[in-house]
Amino acid sequence: MSTHPAGPSRFDHDTAVTRLDATTWRAELDGGWSVLGGLNGGYLLATLGRALGEAFPGKPHALATSVHYVSAATEGPATLEVVPLRDGGRVASAQVLLRQGDDVRVAGTASLGDLARDADDVRTTATPFDLPPRERCVANTAAPAELREVAPLMQRFAMLFHPEHVGWAVGEPNHSGELSAWFRLEGEREPDPLALLLAVDALPPVTFTFGTLGWAPTLELTAHLRAIPVPGWLRIRHATRNIAGGLFEEDCEVWDEAGRLVAQGRQLARLPRG
Amino acid sequence: MSTHPAGPSRFDHDTAVTRLDATTWRAELDGGWSVLGGLNGGYLLATLGRALGEAFPGKPHALATSVHYVSAATEGPATLEVVPLRDGGRVASAQVLLRQGDDVRVAGTASLGDLARDADDVRTTATPFDLPPRERCVANTAAPAELREVAPLMQRFAMLFHPEHVGWAVGEPNHSGELSAWFRLEGEREPDPLALLLAVDALPPVTFTFGTLGWAPTLELTAHLRAIPVPGWLRIRHATRNIAGGLFEEDCEVWDEAGRLVAQGRQLARLPRG
Repeated sequence: MSTHPAGPSRFDHDTAVTRLDATTWRAELDGGWSVLGGLNGGYLLATLGRALGEAFPGKPHALATSVHYVSAATEGPATLEVVPLRDGGRVASAQVLLRQGDDVRVAGTASLGDLARDADDVRTTATPFDLPPRERCVANTAAPAELREVAPLMQRFAMLFHPEHVGWAVGEPNHSGELSAWFRLEGEREPDPLALLLAVDALPPVTFTFGTLGWAPTLELTAHLRAIPVPGWLRIRHATRNIAGGLFEEDCEVWDEAGRLVAQGRQLARLPRG
Repeated sequence: MSTHPAGPSRFDHDTAVTRLDATTWRAELDGGWSVLGGLNGGYLLATLGRALGEAFPGKPHALATSVHYVSAATEGPATLEVVPLRDGGRVASAQVLLRQGDDVRVAGTASLGDLARDADDVRTTATPFDLPPRERCVANTAAPAELREVAPLMQRFAMLFHPEHVGWAVGEPNHSGELSAWFRLEGEREPDPLALLLAVDALPPVTFTFGTLGWAPTLELTAHLRAIPVPGWLRIRHATRNIAGGLFEEDCEVWDEAGRLVAQGRQLARLPRG
C-alpha cells in the first residue's frame, strides 16, 4: 500500500509544462481533451496558463488572456513561449504562443496579477442565471453515444445541463442560442483560476441549440478571471446573439458556489457546416 | 483655388501609417485623441488596423482584434509591428505591437478576413437598444468644460448621449453602469470597419455613471467586427455588470443606421481612483 498522496488530477497532469529556458516550455498535449479531432481551446488555454504561472510567480493569475486559434492542435508535444512585455506595478503582460513543429496553434496576449488583492471589493450588479438543482439536470454521461465518441473531452468533467437546454441531444433543438450547466472537473478536482481557463470553453458550442451538432472552431477567445472560485461546482452559461457572416460570438459566464461571477469569456467562432 | 479634392478626414490623417519594411510601420500619434493625458485605446487600435490592412490586402477587415494596453501612449512617433502567423483560407492572423522608443504601448493579436463575404447571412437575435432620436439626445459639446479640457478626444466626433444616461455630467449619476449615444466622426467621415475599431472605445467609461469622472485605464480590449456599416450615424452602448477587485468589464455594442449589429467589444479596465 502506497503512503504517497494521490497523484495529480488528470487536469493537472495533462496541462503540465516543463521549462526549457527563460521563455520556453514544453507540454505533452493529451488526446483525451479533443472534440471532433481538434484539441479543446480551453484545454490549450489552461496549458498556456501553467506556463504563465511559472513565468510570473508574483502575479499568479491571468486576469485577461486573449488568444487566437491559428490552426488545430493535435495530441503530442508542443512548445509554449511566454515573452514578457512589462512587469511593473500590479499587472504584468506577456505575449504567448503555442506551437507544434513549425505551426503556430495558438497566439495571444495575457495580463497577469493577483486576484487575492482587493478580493472583497465586489460591486457586481449581475445576478446568477437560473439553473435548476443538480439532481434535476441532465448529465453529460447521458449524451448520445455518437457525441461521446467524437468528444472524449466530455469525459474529463461532470457536466449537468439545464434540462430545458438539451433538446438538441434528442433531436429537439430549442433554437435559443443558450446553454447552461453545472461543471466539475474529473476526480472532483476543485476549481481554481487555472480551471476557469478551461471552464470558459468547456460547454458544447451554443450552435448545438440550433440543431447543428458540428464542431465550431474558435477564431478568438478572451477570458477574464475575476475572482478565485470557492471549492465546489461551477455554473456556466454560454449564449449567442449575433450569428452572421458565417461567424457567431459566444458569451460565457462562470459562477462559483458562493454566487460570485468568477470568470467571463467571449469568443468568436465559425459556424459549423451542415 | 486648388483643384485637388479635400484632404483626408482628421481620423484618416491621424491614423495614417508609413510602411518601413515587410513587418514594420511608423505612425505619428496625434495628441488630439487624448483623454486625461493618455491616448485613447480605440485610436491606437484603429492605427494598428491601418497597418493590418496594408499587411493583408486580400483580407481587409480585422474580424477579431484583441489588444492589451501595456503602458500609456503619448503624442509623437510610434513604431507598429505586424508579424504574420498564418495566411490561409478565409482567415489570416498576426501578432501586433505598437511601441514608442523601447516601451511597448499595445500588444495583441488579430484575425483578418473579408466582411463582404457572406454579408447577407444574418441570423442575429439581438435587438437594438433603446436610444431616443438624435434631437432629444445630449451633445458632447454640452459636456462640462473641465471634461472637454482634459479630453480633447471629445472634439474628434459628434456624440449624442441618451438623455437618461448623462446625469453624471450634472452631478446626478444614475449608478446604472450603462451609457449609450449616437456617434459620428468629425467631418461626417462615414463609418467603416476601421472606424468601428475606434467606436468600440469612444464613449466615456461606464464608471462615469457611478459619479467617478476619472480615467479608467483599459487593460485589455477585444473588438469583433461583424459587418460593414452603412453610411450614417452609429449607435453605441456600453454596459458593465461586474465591478470587483478594482477592475470592471465593459461590454460594447455598435449598431449602424440599417439596424445591424456591426461590432461588439469587451474590455477589462481599472476602476478610476476617487
